[in-house]
Amino acid sequence: MTKNKEKQSARMVFAANLRLARRLRDVSQEALALDAGLSRTYVSEVERGERNVSIDNMGLLADALQIPLKDLVDPERFKVLD
Amino acid sequence: MTKNKEKQSARMVFAANLRLARRLRDVSQEALALDAGLSRTYVSEVERGERNVSIDNMGLLADALQIPLKDLVDPERFKVLD
Repeated sequence: MTKNKEKQSARMVFAANLRLARRLRDVSQEALALDAGLSRTYVSEVERGERNVSIDNMGLLADALQIPLKDLVDPERFKVLD
Repeated sequence: MTKNKEKQSARMVFAANLRLARRLRDVSQEALALDAGLSRTYVSEVERGERNVSIDNMGLLADALQIPLKDLVDPERFKVLD
């Protein structure tokens, strides 16, 4: 019986969902950074899970992508149905 | 026509939901802080919206309360049906 899949950290879920949501909306990191008032490097680091992003910046990113923040922290939200 | 209710910031939604979720589970700030590996003062400041809490700590708090993080950032989650 394979071990239950390790629970992904909140940081990595947010990183993956942010990237997916951005790509689904065909928005570049540059455009997202501009809309959110953050730097492109910062957005790139958040998407790679290298930043312990704060809630204020999470709110800015969600608003810039016009997506509810809860969708960006939900591990199931962008899961392709197996 | 009254102006649409101002959108609550992500920080204030998390602050309010954390307090509600903790109380609904009858958990003290002390016990939550201990479970999450954070200080009681820190938990109290987060619940008052005084902390720009990071995603790693948001994950620790959600896990300690055994609630999905998405519920703690959802402004509708604990809304009492009008």
